[in-house]
Amino acid sequence: MKFKSTAISHPNIAFVKYWGKKDEDLRIPLNNSISMNLGNLWTKTTVEFNDFDEDVVIINKNVAEGTAKERVIKFIDRFRNQVNTTLKAKVVSENNFPMSSGIASSASGFAALTVASASALNLNLSEKELSILARLGSGSACRSIPDGFTEWLTGTCNDDSYSVSIANSEYFEIYDLIVMVKKEKKDVSSTTGMQKFNPYFYARLAEVNENLNFVRKSIIDRNLKTLGTYAEKDCISMHTVMMNSGLFYWEPETLKIMKEVWNLRKNGIECYFTIDAGPNVHVLCLHKDKEKVKERISELNFEILESKPGGKARVIKEDLF
Amino acid sequence: MKFKSTAISHPNIAFVKYWGKKDEDLRIPLNNSISMNLGNLWTKTTVEFNDFDEDVVIINKNVAEGTAKERVIKFIDRFRNQVNTTLKAKVVSENNFPMSSGIASSASGFAALTVASASALNLNLSEKELSILARLGSGSACRSIPDGFTEWLTGTCNDDSYSVSIANSEYFEIYDLIVMVKKEKKDVSSTTGMQKFNPYFYARLAEVNENLNFVRKSIIDRNLKTLGTYAEKDCISMHTVMMNSGLFYWEPETLKIMKEVWNLRKNGIECYFTIDAGPNVHVLCLHKDKEKVKERISELNFEILESKPGGKARVIKEDLF
Repeated sequence: MKFKSTAISHPNIAFVKYWGKKDEDLRIPLNNSISMNLGNLWTKTTVEFNDFDEDVVIINKNVAEGTAKERVIKFIDRFRNQVNTTLKAKVVSENNFPMSSGIASSASGFAALTVASASALNLNLSEKELSILARLGSGSACRSIPDGFTEWLTGTCNDDSYSVSIANSEYFEIYDLIVMVKKEKKDVSSTTGMQKFNPYFYARLAEVNENLNFVRKSIIDRNLKTLGTYAEKDCISMHTVMMNSGLFYWEPETLKIMKEVWNLRKNGIECYFTIDAGPNVHVLCLHKDKEKVKERISELNFEILESKPGGKARVIKEDLF
Repeated sequence: MKFKSTAISHPNIAFVKYWGKKDEDLRIPLNNSISMNLGNLWTKTTVEFNDFDEDVVIINKNVAEGTAKERVIKFIDRFRNQVNTTLKAKVVSENNFPMSSGIASSASGFAALTVASASALNLNLSEKELSILARLGSGSACRSIPDGFTEWLTGTCNDDSYSVSIANSEYFEIYDLIVMVKKEKKDVSSTTGMQKFNPYFYARLAEVNENLNFVRKSIIDRNLKTLGTYAEKDCISMHTVMMNSGLFYWEPETLKIMKEVWNLRKNGIECYFTIDAGPNVHVLCLHKDKEKVKERISELNFEILESKPGGKARVIKEDLF
């Protein structure tokens, strides 16, 4: 038996962030989070189970070794165990987005790997099951499984911590303009940073449900103003909690772009920012304002990558041979 | 009866900040704060009670009108009431530090006004009584009354909220290098900002006593490392609480200087930052490192104002005629 399948998946940008875990190993978060898949960016992953001599993992045309490879193989083993096979795997994965975008490839990477692996082994899994499996690879990968705008329900255990779609990718045409600040590798990985609890962390938990409620409703209402207001609030909340743990992801240029976003709003151009665990700024706006916002931010000499909402993680080619 | 007296007082920089009040009118804070008087900067204030036609207030050679004048006159009235006089007052006040230093003149201004007024009217007040009176003019003014490094004890009511000296100005020779970012007037006054409570504010209160204990002890131990570490921690705490209230005092250049301070420490040059409710950065270092720190920060094209610790608010000329 030889199985092969290819899937693509989009990375996502969180409007309400995931920060802090209930369970480290199972990656069960302390709070729900809401994100949008980034349709213009993708990871394409082909998984083939065959009578190879050994497991091989190729990421962006480079053979993976060490912990990077182990993480993928350990993940693949869950699928092999389900069908009781000892066939070796060949995993070939590629991203269309540059490192400088600051977009972590782990979310789209593990989401695509989940869908491709399940498909290659003819496992007929529900979206919920796929999301749970993707989560075990990388927490936020579970949000890249469903379509469009998704919410990760924290849950209580492995079986009920997964993501659902709030609205599909066509429902609300907003754009994420990713403003790139610099290409340096960040000093501290977000996994390390997340362990550092402090009093501000609990303050964040006290208000995060309000942010979730407003953001969820704003997506359903197609209301950018509310979405952006609470996304900014949540972003500032997460980053200030981080700062109180000694984690500074902002660069001077990050603050410059944040202030330019406020400045644009003062001048009647509606846009909002959010920032992941890195220095780049995601500027959210409607289609009608996209070119104006891009023009103004380009004047400050920053490169911009744009994306509209993206669909679910899906098989794009499936070979059974 | 005609009375005249001149006093000088220094502004102060807080290592553990004052943010949030128990009592708005009496300016009783929710937490203790610790600061250092800035000896190279001063306000000189002459108060004369005489049979003038009206009260006159002159600040930096300009005649004060409106609320600025009213605040001073209302303050002076407390002193007039104590001795039951209807004599009019002439107040002439001058600062030797520029607006661009971002140093509020209210602390040194009300401390000097307190000492000059009490002296002009021959009121024999204790340091505690002077500190209480100065506090009623401007909260942090009470910290500029005692010598050197002072702690404002929050207290419970008007009579027990005042500052005491932890160590005199000669005790610990540290320097404050005030790095000036820009000269624009800040958008929101700190009094307005302080009203905005949020969950992060309470998180700050939960850890501020630890910061106070370490900073107090570090002054007594002449230990810059501990002092600076906790001053930075407290500064980040206050500013992140502010950010969660929508108050951003940091400019991109502020963050640039903060990062340069961390960079200098990585390179073995010991210095630490703290930031008040404005964009300028106060860099703390020992005398032996002062020139090196100034040189490195000047290379980034910032102007620097330096100060060593300062003494108590004091009469410098006293005329009874």
